[in-house]
Amino acid sequence: MRSLPGRQLAAAIRSEAADFAAGLAAAGAAPRLAVVTATADPASAWYVRSIAAAAAKAGIVCDVIEARASSAEVSAALSALSADPAVHGIILQTPLPEGASLAELAGGIDVGKDVDGANPASLGRLVAGLPAFAPATAEAVVALLDHHGVAVASQRVVVVGRSVVVGKPVAHLLLDRDATVTICHSRTRDLASVTRQADILVVAAGRAGLIGPAHVAPDAVVIDVGTNPGPDGRLVGDVDPSVAAAALSPVPGGVGPVTTALLLRHVAEAAAASGG
Amino acid sequence: MRSLPGRQLAAAIRSEAADFAAGLAAAGAAPRLAVVTATADPASAWYVRSIAAAAAKAGIVCDVIEARASSAEVSAALSALSADPAVHGIILQTPLPEGASLAELAGGIDVGKDVDGANPASLGRLVAGLPAFAPATAEAVVALLDHHGVAVASQRVVVVGRSVVVGKPVAHLLLDRDATVTICHSRTRDLASVTRQADILVVAAGRAGLIGPAHVAPDAVVIDVGTNPGPDGRLVGDVDPSVAAAALSPVPGGVGPVTTALLLRHVAEAAAASGG
Repeated sequence: MRSLPGRQLAAAIRSEAADFAAGLAAAGAAPRLAVVTATADPASAWYVRSIAAAAAKAGIVCDVIEARASSAEVSAALSALSADPAVHGIILQTPLPEGASLAELAGGIDVGKDVDGANPASLGRLVAGLPAFAPATAEAVVALLDHHGVAVASQRVVVVGRSVVVGKPVAHLLLDRDATVTICHSRTRDLASVTRQADILVVAAGRAGLIGPAHVAPDAVVIDVGTNPGPDGRLVGDVDPSVAAAALSPVPGGVGPVTTALLLRHVAEAAAASGG
Repeated sequence: MRSLPGRQLAAAIRSEAADFAAGLAAAGAAPRLAVVTATADPASAWYVRSIAAAAAKAGIVCDVIEARASSAEVSAALSALSADPAVHGIILQTPLPEGASLAELAGGIDVGKDVDGANPASLGRLVAGLPAFAPATAEAVVALLDHHGVAVASQRVVVVGRSVVVGKPVAHLLLDRDATVTICHSRTRDLASVTRQADILVVAAGRAGLIGPAHVAPDAVVIDVGTNPGPDGRLVGDVDPSVAAAALSPVPGGVGPVTTALLLRHVAEAAAASGG
């Protein structure tokens, strides 16, 4: 079975972002990303540090803003950052406090700075075929398929998972590439009978080992978006690595690094579009 | 084969809208709908007259605004109507002039008045699970299934057509009802093999007779959203009426009347939400 690693692609995208950022910095306006964290979740804090480190290497300034008192404080922070001409990209980091809605709060992110496509207005533009930043994870799936030369048009794609951050947007990005797309979820009847029909199977359910050998056709290309904590503290995907398929993206080292790289490229693009 | 007519449901929805409108009128603020027409298309003019007549019967004022000089004139009209507190609902009627984009122009419709869900921001809210008006045709498909007692959860739904006004939003509405949803289109390989898997088949392709006997499983419920001009000037659907299925919605008299009724109910709801 072929592996579909993402690190080399990620390095190429980061390098594009860095070149872009260097050009902007030379013109006196280094791209600037603001990450708003609403909770003190440790896994999220680790992820934010990794974004900040990758941004620094690419010449992108990254501010982390803690807004932990209330949803109102988060909204106020997003409004201030949206209005600040020195900030080019804004990420609202999950998890949010109990009861808060990402889609609702992210409606306060200026669409031009919405580098992770979290504002429903960005999603609507994406679905309607207008220019918008896609959620980086969803875009990373498509970029990984392209990088490995997997054709999408007229293929049967099955997406497992219907989240607003991955499942739904990736379904639209692949539909836009002329795939025939099926969306499955926890209420799908006989999941294996549906996923076995996939030429390309995209799994973004957030359940370790959900997809086993019985779920995958032998000639399928499988993209594993899952990042679950494994028994020994390492990341594991949603796909059991013992499946027999034509190709499978690894976890870690598949979609994940491409996602972070695309976020950085979005920030550089947003900075360029804002005129610095 | 069972028929799934929409006229009785449409009458019930219109009657709700009329009761709603009467209450608002008694409080001094009859609901008001504005329809902006950008071209002189005869079929469209006929449809606008039928909306205006249905609105009048339901106690909803309907203004038709001709904005035919340019896209800029359309945008200016939508902005003015969005800002006008006396207007509660706005429809931008298609077809638009060559080269104009519905999604782009409809971005100028205030989301609270976007009674046909044409603004991409409304679509994004719908996809993200936030309150928004759905495109009336897409909502009419779901209302017709509900009215005839067709269960949707965990059923395999196949949608033929990926337009922003029907295919994509109806896919999301049914996904939200826990269906497993596949979206097909003109680039789908072996369409019949996909549509035959549908428990519920929704056809919104805009091609008369696209779906024939080979495309439909004998126990499927088929909703025909097509409204094509037939040889003798009558409307014909996308589904050949000779298909053998468990149930089929007629054209005309299926989804169409429910769509118009829902538009009116949306206007009454928008008026109530605006505070008159």
